[in-house]
Amino acid sequence: MITGKNYIGSKISAEGNVTYTTINPKLNTENEWVFTEATEAEVDAAATLAAEAFEVYKNKTDAERALFLRQIALEIEDLGQQLINAYTTESGLPEGRAMGERGRTIGQLNAFASLLEQGDWVQATLDLADPKRTPAPKPDLRKMQIAIGPVAVFGASNFPFAFSTAGGDTASALAAGCPVIVKSHPMHAATGELVALAIIKAAQKTGMPEGVFSNLNSKGITVGEQLVKHAAIKGVGFTGSIKAGKALCKIAANREEPISVYAEMGSINPVVLLPEALKARGESWAQKYAASINMGAGQFCTNPGLILGIASTELDNFGKHLASYIDEQIASCMLHPNIHSAYETGKQNMLDASETEVLAVKLATNGANDGKPTLVKVSGEAFLENKDLHTEVFGPFSMLVACDSQTQLVEVLNQLEGQLTGSLIGDSSEVAKYSKVIDALRSRVGRILFNGVPTGVEVCPAMHHGGPFPASSDSKFTSVGNDAIYRWVRPVSYQDWPQEILPAALQDDNPLGILRKVNGFYTKA
Amino acid sequence: MITGKNYIGSKISAEGNVTYTTINPKLNTENEWVFTEATEAEVDAAATLAAEAFEVYKNKTDAERALFLRQIALEIEDLGQQLINAYTTESGLPEGRAMGERGRTIGQLNAFASLLEQGDWVQATLDLADPKRTPAPKPDLRKMQIAIGPVAVFGASNFPFAFSTAGGDTASALAAGCPVIVKSHPMHAATGELVALAIIKAAQKTGMPEGVFSNLNSKGITVGEQLVKHAAIKGVGFTGSIKAGKALCKIAANREEPISVYAEMGSINPVVLLPEALKARGESWAQKYAASINMGAGQFCTNPGLILGIASTELDNFGKHLASYIDEQIASCMLHPNIHSAYETGKQNMLDASETEVLAVKLATNGANDGKPTLVKVSGEAFLENKDLHTEVFGPFSMLVACDSQTQLVEVLNQLEGQLTGSLIGDSSEVAKYSKVIDALRSRVGRILFNGVPTGVEVCPAMHHGGPFPASSDSKFTSVGNDAIYRWVRPVSYQDWPQEILPAALQDDNPLGILRKVNGFYTKA
Repeated sequence: MITGKNYIGSKISAEGNVTYTTINPKLNTENEWVFTEATEAEVDAAATLAAEAFEVYKNKTDAERALFLRQIALEIEDLGQQLINAYTTESGLPEGRAMGERGRTIGQLNAFASLLEQGDWVQATLDLADPKRTPAPKPDLRKMQIAIGPVAVFGASNFPFAFSTAGGDTASALAAGCPVIVKSHPMHAATGELVALAIIKAAQKTGMPEGVFSNLNSKGITVGEQLVKHAAIKGVGFTGSIKAGKALCKIAANREEPISVYAEMGSINPVVLLPEALKARGESWAQKYAASINMGAGQFCTNPGLILGIASTELDNFGKHLASYIDEQIASCMLHPNIHSAYETGKQNMLDASETEVLAVKLATNGANDGKPTLVKVSGEAFLENKDLHTEVFGPFSMLVACDSQTQLVEVLNQLEGQLTGSLIGDSSEVAKYSKVIDALRSRVGRILFNGVPTGVEVCPAMHHGGPFPASSDSKFTSVGNDAIYRWVRPVSYQDWPQEILPAALQDDNPLGILRKVNGFYTKA
Repeated sequence: MITGKNYIGSKISAEGNVTYTTINPKLNTENEWVFTEATEAEVDAAATLAAEAFEVYKNKTDAERALFLRQIALEIEDLGQQLINAYTTESGLPEGRAMGERGRTIGQLNAFASLLEQGDWVQATLDLADPKRTPAPKPDLRKMQIAIGPVAVFGASNFPFAFSTAGGDTASALAAGCPVIVKSHPMHAATGELVALAIIKAAQKTGMPEGVFSNLNSKGITVGEQLVKHAAIKGVGFTGSIKAGKALCKIAANREEPISVYAEMGSINPVVLLPEALKARGESWAQKYAASINMGAGQFCTNPGLILGIASTELDNFGKHLASYIDEQIASCMLHPNIHSAYETGKQNMLDASETEVLAVKLATNGANDGKPTLVKVSGEAFLENKDLHTEVFGPFSMLVACDSQTQLVEVLNQLEGQLTGSLIGDSSEVAKYSKVIDALRSRVGRILFNGVPTGVEVCPAMHHGGPFPASSDSKFTSVGNDAIYRWVRPVSYQDWPQEILPAALQDDNPLGILRKVNGFYTKA
């Protein structure tokens, strides 16, 4: 069933001569499947077909698109153990994680289906005519969101399901009414192909146009660049490194018609420890953070890579406890030998830096690609002076920074690049004293947590998964939760438009029964 | 009262040695005031002060910012005839237009104040905790919009009030909680200074922080570039030419921390004439469009510069009628000798093009800088072949395109660059036959009108003033209407955050009484 070929709509295609395989990182061996990189002609064919599909797909009703999304979820479930096996084989992640992530992916698809069924998401806004207004009559204006056109989605290495082929980017774009072309992630191309087949099957069963979804193989950067440059592509979803994300943003900005790349890139997710909380429950937080740092071999974008406090005996004790809990963690297999070796290099740079003191560095492991959790410590002064210490080390690595004062702590926060999350560990009694710290932390992040760990991203309307640059390329948009759909739409106003050709969402009698803003007030009437 | 100097907060500053004057385009003479271009040090001082002001201003309540906006409106009104005189002297526009535009500007300020007082705009979204959920407890998540930081606003030549110093960009940014630095438009620098003074006075009277607003003079491009490059600036509002807008977008994208430039650039605002409507009311539409083309000397961004139809006797008759009504129009003074000469050049290029037939070109006028309304005609084929014919001629110019078929009309629409507006003149009986035309028109525009003229932009929530590139740099955002505020904010999620330090908009008991999405449903509870 895994062909290793590209899918241009439902058509299998492998015209190129560049091939590659995926790796089983647990065994450190090549997997059996061989994938053929898409050619420029195949990229063009997929994009052109997507543009044709858009002309049909954009006129499908919300209810029809909801059925499509629910069918994708069913088809993914139907792939059963075969899909779980491909996932674990290609990612080195355990079966439990595969099942959990599949559940989340199915949940996301169904959540977007529910959003479409509810219908409010189009943000229908009506200002009715007033022909008697003076000096000029008031026209009738009605506004709603419409789809932008074909979208390119880049699969992510660290979430083969939830942020890849049928992940949040694809689900939200298809929900919005945009055809999707996935640039399959080369580290889990077989998993990707199986999921792509599920989407294509669902499209056929629910009467969606040919080309509403395509899946292109690519090991290098060429296919991605060609996609982002293609005139038919109107938006891009990306989860990955800062370097790759920035490169795609530049390409998109330099097009004849610039488009938006919604890139979720790197984050070291600062955690601020306040003194009273450390005094009262320092060890318990050390235990929770050791687990959070090592969770999924530290390969979550919300992994806590930076822990900040004010130098004190309690902070020293916290460091010791965190180190000993980290020593107790079981190292687990990273996603790919390349990711493992990048981790080793990044970690070694931090260990070698003259400013760092090593608190914990796990040595003994079972597998060649295990990510060994590591903790270092630096002073606030050193952290301020050497920006290299701000670099994300993708994996189970964290850095404890001991600042000499609240002022220095604020200074460190103000100097940080944008982040997905920021966490505050504190007692209610002390938060008022640290309002400047909280303010500085909030200004750098997209999500701020109180007495929790940042790993574990709840999928719900109030989630914001994004943050100031470079955590994401546009801090206004989220890649998780219902609001992710707004990356793929734009508003259009209809002025004095006849009822019979107005979209249902904007008609006088509100046939969809959705919440609308009418003359400035929300109503379902 | 007009000093010609820069305002860094409330402080007058003129450290540079480059000076310039404005022109009275009606008299074709220099005005008395001399303006001093801001230096790089002054740009830096204004931006640094704005960043400091932001730390205070972002914590002002919605009610406090609303008072500030209402006070600006009062102070502008208080400037009385002095302000109207400066406007007419520097723009050549008539007093009636000045009064009307001042009314609109005051209306915009008060509309944003009302939006703040209503409070719903923060899009508060709450997903309450479920500690008993399995396998993992559900955290408490609450999301709302917060201000991004200092914003640079570029005044526009064609709306000295409504899109300049205290125009929509400034009003929406101040409403959002962002300090504003205006790069004053060099063609109406005195008008700009008077309005700047009104804003500064209002800031002082309502207790806003020093530096919440600054006004910088600049005749060239340097000050604007320095502003967009400045690390303290987090967003840019611009209305102007495609060339300048594109240049600013490039600069912003190449910053270490890229930021968004919300640029409203050019548009030729296609109008599609359907046969039955032409047959029944062709002459009446010709009369209305002649007035729309010539309104404000054609210097509106929604000026109808392109009129499309299918070749027929009726279209020929429409062309004749339009030409004769254009001949009846009274030419009026353009904003500036430079704008007038750019119009003459652009118009001449169109008249000289081998493909165009001249239908109307007014010759006799009263003033040196009058914009003489002009109409040319080309075939659909010629328009498809020569993209130079798509260029906007800023002024009272329009082009009638006779397509040979509906298919060619669709082709022309599909080849058009993005537009602010698209208008359809049609009979209800014929619209069903032209669904492809309507679809193509909608895909190229931000606002679509039925049986109307695009000039005259209603300021209301359902207005979308923006469109696919290059009509605007980001088609998701509007520069007119309440939703313009969303250019200057980003969402932040609070996870498990204590009630006492949550923003009022997110607290359990909804002290602001605003509409919120709670667990997926809208409620004021």
